[in-house]
Amino acid sequence: MNEKKLVNIGVIGFGTVGAGTLKVLWERKPEIERELGVSIQVKRVVDKDWTRERNMVLPPEMKGNDPLEVIADPEIEIVVEAIGGISPAFEIVTQALQHGKSVVTPNKELIAKKGRELLEIAGEIKTDLFFEGAVGGGIPIIHALKEQLVGDEIEEVIGIVNGTTNFILSEMSLHKSSYHDALAEAQKRGYAEPVPTMDVEAFDAAYKIAILASLCFHTRVDVEKVFREGITRLIPEDIDFANELGFAVKLLAISKKIDGQLELRVHPVLLPIEHPLATVNGVENAIYIKSKTRALTFRGPGAGGEATGSALVGDIIEAIRNIQFQCKGRVGCTCTCELEVRPIAELVTRYCVRVLALDVPGVLGKIATQFGEADVSLQAVKQPVSTPGRLTNIYFLTHDVVEEKLWNSLERIKKLEVVQDVYAIRVEQGS
Amino acid sequence: MNEKKLVNIGVIGFGTVGAGTLKVLWERKPEIERELGVSIQVKRVVDKDWTRERNMVLPPEMKGNDPLEVIADPEIEIVVEAIGGISPAFEIVTQALQHGKSVVTPNKELIAKKGRELLEIAGEIKTDLFFEGAVGGGIPIIHALKEQLVGDEIEEVIGIVNGTTNFILSEMSLHKSSYHDALAEAQKRGYAEPVPTMDVEAFDAAYKIAILASLCFHTRVDVEKVFREGITRLIPEDIDFANELGFAVKLLAISKKIDGQLELRVHPVLLPIEHPLATVNGVENAIYIKSKTRALTFRGPGAGGEATGSALVGDIIEAIRNIQFQCKGRVGCTCTCELEVRPIAELVTRYCVRVLALDVPGVLGKIATQFGEADVSLQAVKQPVSTPGRLTNIYFLTHDVVEEKLWNSLERIKKLEVVQDVYAIRVEQGS
Repeated sequence: MNEKKLVNIGVIGFGTVGAGTLKVLWERKPEIERELGVSIQVKRVVDKDWTRERNMVLPPEMKGNDPLEVIADPEIEIVVEAIGGISPAFEIVTQALQHGKSVVTPNKELIAKKGRELLEIAGEIKTDLFFEGAVGGGIPIIHALKEQLVGDEIEEVIGIVNGTTNFILSEMSLHKSSYHDALAEAQKRGYAEPVPTMDVEAFDAAYKIAILASLCFHTRVDVEKVFREGITRLIPEDIDFANELGFAVKLLAISKKIDGQLELRVHPVLLPIEHPLATVNGVENAIYIKSKTRALTFRGPGAGGEATGSALVGDIIEAIRNIQFQCKGRVGCTCTCELEVRPIAELVTRYCVRVLALDVPGVLGKIATQFGEADVSLQAVKQPVSTPGRLTNIYFLTHDVVEEKLWNSLERIKKLEVVQDVYAIRVEQGS
Repeated sequence: MNEKKLVNIGVIGFGTVGAGTLKVLWERKPEIERELGVSIQVKRVVDKDWTRERNMVLPPEMKGNDPLEVIADPEIEIVVEAIGGISPAFEIVTQALQHGKSVVTPNKELIAKKGRELLEIAGEIKTDLFFEGAVGGGIPIIHALKEQLVGDEIEEVIGIVNGTTNFILSEMSLHKSSYHDALAEAQKRGYAEPVPTMDVEAFDAAYKIAILASLCFHTRVDVEKVFREGITRLIPEDIDFANELGFAVKLLAISKKIDGQLELRVHPVLLPIEHPLATVNGVENAIYIKSKTRALTFRGPGAGGEATGSALVGDIIEAIRNIQFQCKGRVGCTCTCELEVRPIAELVTRYCVRVLALDVPGVLGKIATQFGEADVSLQAVKQPVSTPGRLTNIYFLTHDVVEEKLWNSLERIKKLEVVQDVYAIRVEQGS
């Protein structure tokens, strides 16, 4: 028998995902080697700071400090970028590709902002750039979209793609916690950062929907054009009202192709409880894809070192197969068009509107009149039992209306003397 | 610019799936051609009976009667087998592979019974045999298991893989229908065959779990070794009892690796309502996979010409990419071991037992005593209000017990004079 081919791998960045990837790779090494008929070796792991405490011990000769030790090593065929962010990840991935390496990265910000450029470089060099871990952590959605579903006429993609916010909303729903208490619980459990802005203001989800939309609709997407609204203004009463009407409240990343334009938005949503995404709770992620011929839901862990590490190992396996079969670049960029993004003001949907107003005689009539004058018609209203003269939240559910008209109605309502605050949540129709 | 490569496709079998595949392929031809940079032509469609009425009209020069017109045509590179069953599908696929064609088939019986042999031929010839449509219709589970998840240490796979029975059980649950009424409704809607044996006696699901288990556990699976029990004995009361205790009733196809052995079984199950499969209703399918590092659920349409056709088109696209990149056979057979199948008698789980008995004084004590003497301990009991002296269903939920002991207890209970019938449903613990 021939000696088995040896594939050398270099890892840049030894944080949660880098370490998770190595752990999964080492634990499954014999099986993967048997499956592929190759030998796998992690030749070098680069990190800028080896003094941080870690659960995993690496042999000293494996450790490095300079990404060039990986990028410029002619023996290394596969580079795992696991440092995150744009700089220096962009330079590192660019150079690795230019050196002909197959690159595996879970870096959502990098792919959302620089994916086009990097895939073009990979295409020119005829090498692979894989990023299965960039959306939905351990959920194998990216390859599915680039391969099995690439022929589908996809109409919409809707995702719960941020575990932190899904956990917070689940807590608020289950335990009637306030947003701040639920956030504190998420931080206690390590699900939320001390500064949670990236998650709760939906930057993270915006990167991910940019990537998903790009794959689903074969279009370049400018991440800056994603409409983005976080979850910080939600209160438990909102969720109660939603539940009463048969909705769950979720932070959804949504993209739909409508009349040749692209909807591209992340915001809290009232979602019918029968929707496959409505029962996805806690830190779990899920992605729902509706094409002309099939509606699919992919559900699983959205984060975690070993779950995301498994996605990276899946990419490494793909990269090895392509090296073995000399077909690097077999699946490259799948974008063939450039769709326009539809402004959020043109969205047509139902809205749940919460109005904080003084409980005085005639208050409901005054608010309802403003809706009517702005040409917004109402489907349901809930005014809870409250104390006369005190502030109370009144809830309205509108019929379908274009968002611009809804805004007009809210502007009018805000001007009423009895009204102190107004907040609107979009409704998703369900499948 | 070079002229685009022309890829010729031949289709054998022009029933629901064959026609669905052609419809999807034609509707998406421009996009797929642009995506892949090739021209696609369906050169020949073979069927033995062109007198059947069809929704789709083919040009006369495309129609053929003899599979050899496809198999032996040197211009045809991709063969779609869509006739189903073993003979002549097995001979056709074998010959097509031997002629070096890439073969796409959704034929679950063929893959379950002859997959090993066919994948070996494909491996020797270095060509592709793809069967994404064989399990879960339009759900892209097969490629995920052979590619992204091939490195995972999978512990269990559980599927709702038969839409007919899932529809019947959903009807029984929603409308309290009898099994026979629900079956009639399924037949009326075209979800069930006039002779529904393949579905309701779980032959279809057995094929599918054999395929899934083979992929998940990298093992050859003899489909005859799947333990199989259908849904014909279920009554609406069973579902009521299950619901009261927080379970749904589903026909599940289950395979788990336990102590190096394989559980391989299809039967009705009480499934905790929080389980991702518990809310999958109607004809939908879903597959739940738990590996050491991640739990994933894939949900979508389990049948339908266009949904399954989309899976076949996905396979055709994969085949074309491999032809373009000269890497046919890139992903072949992933079986590297031969696990033993654990006998059902050794299963350890909880059981829901329904005992039809005369409502006479002491009946509960007599039955409970038999459980105790057979060393089966009980977790819950429900004896409904009934008419003294009449037959009534009494329900028992056991603690974990090995199935052999459960059988012993049921044998004892059957022998009681007051007992007319006994029926047991296995409980799935959930994730």
